Amino acid sequence: MTATAAEAEELVSRLLGGDRRALARALTFVENGDPVGRQALSLLYPKTGRAQIAGITGGSGTGKSTLTGQLAKEYRRRGRSVGVVAVDPSSPFSHGALLGDRIRMQELTADRDVFVRSMATRGELGGLAATTGDVAAVLDAAGKQVVLIETVGAGQDEVEVASAADTTVVVLTPGGGDGVQAMKAGIMEIADVLVINKADLAGVDALAAQLTAITPRDTHVPVIRTVATRNEGTAELADAIDAHRQRLESSGERERVALDRARRQVLAQARLQLLAGLLDSESGRARLDQLVKAVAARELDPYTAAQRLLDSAGGEPASTT
Amino acid sequence: MTATAAEAEELVSRLLGGDRRALARALTFVENGDPVGRQALSLLYPKTGRAQIAGITGGSGTGKSTLTGQLAKEYRRRGRSVGVVAVDPSSPFSHGALLGDRIRMQELTADRDVFVRSMATRGELGGLAATTGDVAAVLDAAGKQVVLIETVGAGQDEVEVASAADTTVVVLTPGGGDGVQAMKAGIMEIADVLVINKADLAGVDALAAQLTAITPRDTHVPVIRTVATRNEGTAELADAIDAHRQRLESSGERERVALDRARRQVLAQARLQLLAGLLDSESGRARLDQLVKAVAARELDPYTAAQRLLDSAGGEPASTT
Repeated sequence: MTATAAEAEELVSRLLGGDRRALARALTFVENGDPVGRQALSLLYPKTGRAQIAGITGGSGTGKSTLTGQLAKEYRRRGRSVGVVAVDPSSPFSHGALLGDRIRMQELTADRDVFVRSMATRGELGGLAATTGDVAAVLDAAGKQVVLIETVGAGQDEVEVASAADTTVVVLTPGGGDGVQAMKAGIMEIADVLVINKADLAGVDALAAQLTAITPRDTHVPVIRTVATRNEGTAELADAIDAHRQRLESSGERERVALDRARRQVLAQARLQLLAGLLDSESGRARLDQLVKAVAARELDPYTAAQRLLDSAGGEPASTT
Repeated sequence: MTATAAEAEELVSRLLGGDRRALARALTFVENGDPVGRQALSLLYPKTGRAQIAGITGGSGTGKSTLTGQLAKEYRRRGRSVGVVAVDPSSPFSHGALLGDRIRMQELTADRDVFVRSMATRGELGGLAATTGDVAAVLDAAGKQVVLIETVGAGQDEVEVASAADTTVVVLTPGGGDGVQAMKAGIMEIADVLVINKADLAGVDALAAQLTAITPRDTHVPVIRTVATRNEGTAELADAIDAHRQRLESSGERERVALDRARRQVLAQARLQLLAGLLDSESGRARLDQLVKAVAARELDPYTAAQRLLDSAGGEPASTT
């Protein structure tokens, strides 16, 4: 057995025994793409598939961090252990804004049956979706019965991240008409549950009416009103999430959702590995720099440059160790 | 010469001669990843680098389609030819909402020196950024002096698309505090010019004050007020975009921006080619399906599945034809 395999095996055995520090270390290894993390994930994977995974997404300022924290507490009151994955805005964005909410969420970490993980997002390789799925899988294998993935916004990245969840909750707030604009832009199509947070503000009835009008008749997307800062509506939200998962199972749809998810995860991982392998060597990076200069100088188009980059990597695109 | 090369050469020569239909066909070939498109792009690439490329991004409902249309007209009044690339929301999103704006933009197409291209976004391979850059490059080579790229939202995808531009314009609207929330989430870091559109609405002064307060002192991000539906402020916006480009050139920063852009484009293309090559064959797709099923059944973790997918592709990851 290699040292890596031995370390992964020991880590996994401690993690499965309930050791929080081992869980934290495994997550760090996984997030960093470390070989120990990969081995650990491979050992843990057969233990996954038991957790109920919910994604909480919405624009900034909708209070979804607070809502996620309240939801975690609600599930704890129901006797279920909880993992929280908070995905930071992608690297071109600042990281400061949500700190207050994150700190509030740390209250939860005093509870041994809650595990909160704040994730930074990756740079140019774009591995956010892949890594988030892996982190959720580790929490699942570690026995967390509910895993909440909190993401900001609703761009393509967030849609991919949402695909790691059984149930996607989209959070909106009254006023400004942005809710309806968001709806028009298609968030309906990824939402399994809609939340109007800050439901004590003016305009809540109008927004609720508009959401109901937009929701296609044949779907059953509930609209839940919450005031997360006062813990109002959290129990109803937890009920709605549970009901959606129940519906998935009883309709047999859960299998299709699981296949879709696996497909996205494999493709995201393949994308990540291919490029990581390519750029893992000095010579690979030097070759990229050279090609980039040629493109900037208009001597080469990006397509041809990419082709040459791949050709120079030869037959070992997947080697990342 | 192959038939493909001959077709590309003829297309390019007609395009460079000002044939609009040849331009439209070349763009379709490029967007579809057709070999003729790639050959054409390779032939056209040395002619690129002359256009001034501006990205216009912002949430849905900010009126940025209308603004983009007005900006195109403004540049025409200044005697410059214009290309517009309108990027639709990604496939999980509906395409209907912006149709009104798109139709309004079609007015422009009566003008021979304006070329509008509406792009759908790609599915699971995630090639939006790569393709947008290519489309902008073709318009550049075709002699358009200004290319405006309009994108919705400000997620990771939009950040990548924005990286195809010399100047990134972020559009906000007053009211609701969303502007400031967006700012906190880091849009400042990609904005070269800020626009408050719908500046006839209440709250415009408050938003402007907040934006100015948030903008770091040492940057020079102007805040322009517009009412796009009445064509107010468009000239000021065009001035601000031109001033930014001027600043890039005089400070020598344009070279660094061009290198960054080339790097992103090459990596985006490499990502796209690798996966396209992998999934281009019956056997590759069958292999993927098989691996996806194993992951869904928890027999395999996504990382290992991706590794096997890449291994099975052998030494020809880049073959996409």
